Amino acid sequence: MPENHLTVAGLSESELLAKIFPRLNNGPAQGTALLLGPGDDAAIVAAPDGRTVVSIDTQVQDQDFRLVWRNGYRTTGFDVGWKAAAQNLSDINAMGARSTSMVVSLTLPPETAVSWVEDFADGLSHAIRDLGAAGCSVAGGDLGRGRELAVTVAILGTLDGREAVLRSGARPGHTVALAGTVGHAAAGLALLESGPGVDLLTPEQRAIMDRQCRPLPPLAAGPAALAAGASAMMDISDGLIRDGSRLAAASGVVLDLDPAVLKHLTGPLSAAADAVGGDPMAWVLGGGEDHGLLATFPADVQLPPGFAAIGSVEALAPMESTGVKIAGRPAETVGWDHFAD
Amino acid sequence: MPENHLTVAGLSESELLAKIFPRLNNGPAQGTALLLGPGDDAAIVAAPDGRTVVSIDTQVQDQDFRLVWRNGYRTTGFDVGWKAAAQNLSDINAMGARSTSMVVSLTLPPETAVSWVEDFADGLSHAIRDLGAAGCSVAGGDLGRGRELAVTVAILGTLDGREAVLRSGARPGHTVALAGTVGHAAAGLALLESGPGVDLLTPEQRAIMDRQCRPLPPLAAGPAALAAGASAMMDISDGLIRDGSRLAAASGVVLDLDPAVLKHLTGPLSAAADAVGGDPMAWVLGGGEDHGLLATFPADVQLPPGFAAIGSVEALAPMESTGVKIAGRPAETVGWDHFAD
Repeated sequence: MPENHLTVAGLSESELLAKIFPRLNNGPAQGTALLLGPGDDAAIVAAPDGRTVVSIDTQVQDQDFRLVWRNGYRTTGFDVGWKAAAQNLSDINAMGARSTSMVVSLTLPPETAVSWVEDFADGLSHAIRDLGAAGCSVAGGDLGRGRELAVTVAILGTLDGREAVLRSGARPGHTVALAGTVGHAAAGLALLESGPGVDLLTPEQRAIMDRQCRPLPPLAAGPAALAAGASAMMDISDGLIRDGSRLAAASGVVLDLDPAVLKHLTGPLSAAADAVGGDPMAWVLGGGEDHGLLATFPADVQLPPGFAAIGSVEALAPMESTGVKIAGRPAETVGWDHFAD
Repeated sequence: MPENHLTVAGLSESELLAKIFPRLNNGPAQGTALLLGPGDDAAIVAAPDGRTVVSIDTQVQDQDFRLVWRNGYRTTGFDVGWKAAAQNLSDINAMGARSTSMVVSLTLPPETAVSWVEDFADGLSHAIRDLGAAGCSVAGGDLGRGRELAVTVAILGTLDGREAVLRSGARPGHTVALAGTVGHAAAGLALLESGPGVDLLTPEQRAIMDRQCRPLPPLAAGPAALAAGASAMMDISDGLIRDGSRLAAASGVVLDLDPAVLKHLTGPLSAAADAVGGDPMAWVLGGGEDHGLLATFPADVQLPPGFAAIGSVEALAPMESTGVKIAGRPAETVGWDHFAD
């Protein structure tokens, strides 16, 4: 059997790990926080200020991605590794922290090609490096079998002695700002699910599709927002309106968004809308998975690089509920919920 | 539809989380390391000595447990929660550390009963408390759908300023010692897979069966071994011979086990062997998942409470490979590998 048709069923766990480890960027050369790497019962990671920021996220085949999409695109191991890293790095970013390490659990159907797993490791490594989290190492992991392909990453980060930016600090009069994109991943999903064949996409459409498979969270923006004095922050993983409503609820306020700015955000999505007939504004308001940052800043703070104002924080009127408005009118709650239909 | 027939498909993610959170023991009353709990993009956990010990482990339906076993026993949510906690707590224990927090990812088929998920949360909480890890909190998690039920826990711990006990420190002349049990979970698996109906088991057999579903890692023993001066340590998750071989390889030595002690370890398993015709010695040598600790100590060290000597560390003879022997003869490598058949 040629090497590229080798499946994980043909390897022991230690043989498969031996294929993966050399591809993970956990060398000591890059200022790693890794004090003890893979190979023992647990790893040890530096927590220089005596605190560790931690989060966990899972992707499951046919829930979070399809192995083969309706437009013919085949999700690569690289895509899944990249996205697993990106969405976890984003959670640390959203606290204003920087990532120090991740531990990775892979559940693999026995027919999974070994080359897919190697590609996964490459995607993980490249996302860490290319998104600007080079100090983050893969500290360890777990391999097992299942009928469905699934990836869980738990990520650790450090605040370097500073206070995290929570969801609860937005106050009336503060500026609402966005870093990164919104709606691109949703438009990409529409292209994958109902667009023309992947080979027929224009380069512009293909770039949008790629944001669903390999999102680009703005990792410099989180710590920059913290340093600038952001009052509240979260990453947009379930949609601008849904996640904005969560930030508003945690802070006890209303976010009022500027329709002209929202309209401007739809601009890059017109190429995708042309292909699938989707509504760019629905993608901007309801699309998750770009992993942009939604933050609020006191009005006298100059927004840090990467952030643009998209609205303002308002006090609750008597009897009013927290939430998101657009030009003073309640926005529908649209976005992704894992269970509700 | 009555409450006890409610499935997760009928709840939103936030509604399901609201069912789970009150059952998790993350109150501040018990000296928790949790500085920021669930509800933001990430949690924050204290790392008092500037280091965090971290590990990750996944259980998947039909790979790590069956929803309904051949003897009729139905795996409860409590079982799965308990085992997820126990096997992760054991990884921290095996470093000589104590657990401070865990993050939990649950992948649930839509038909999963909400009561099952509540039971899972109870099992997680009770394992943490009953196994003696009361300082450990659930810091956060992730919920998603899948066709298979799967649970991933990533766990954090602290060494409280001390040096971890690695697998690599065993030296010739050191004593090989065991804390906790070996073979009980394997005997329990045999009862579940090929024993008489669960209702026909004697109390003694039922107790063995329960060790497969709800293992009892000796959590006091890990830090005690570190404090006593253990030279090497690991948890036995894949079997005494297989894991012993790993420790031997990491240390560049041979572990020579005492057959009389091994024979003694088979004693509690005879009730299970009577029922299924299994070989208790095969369970002792090859059975994983009890999560006992295998450790080595310099000969002049008094073994800490919970440990019993089971052999000695030998130097490699010329041309000899590392490994495990029994009374000087190479032991077969038996035990669990997730991929090899």
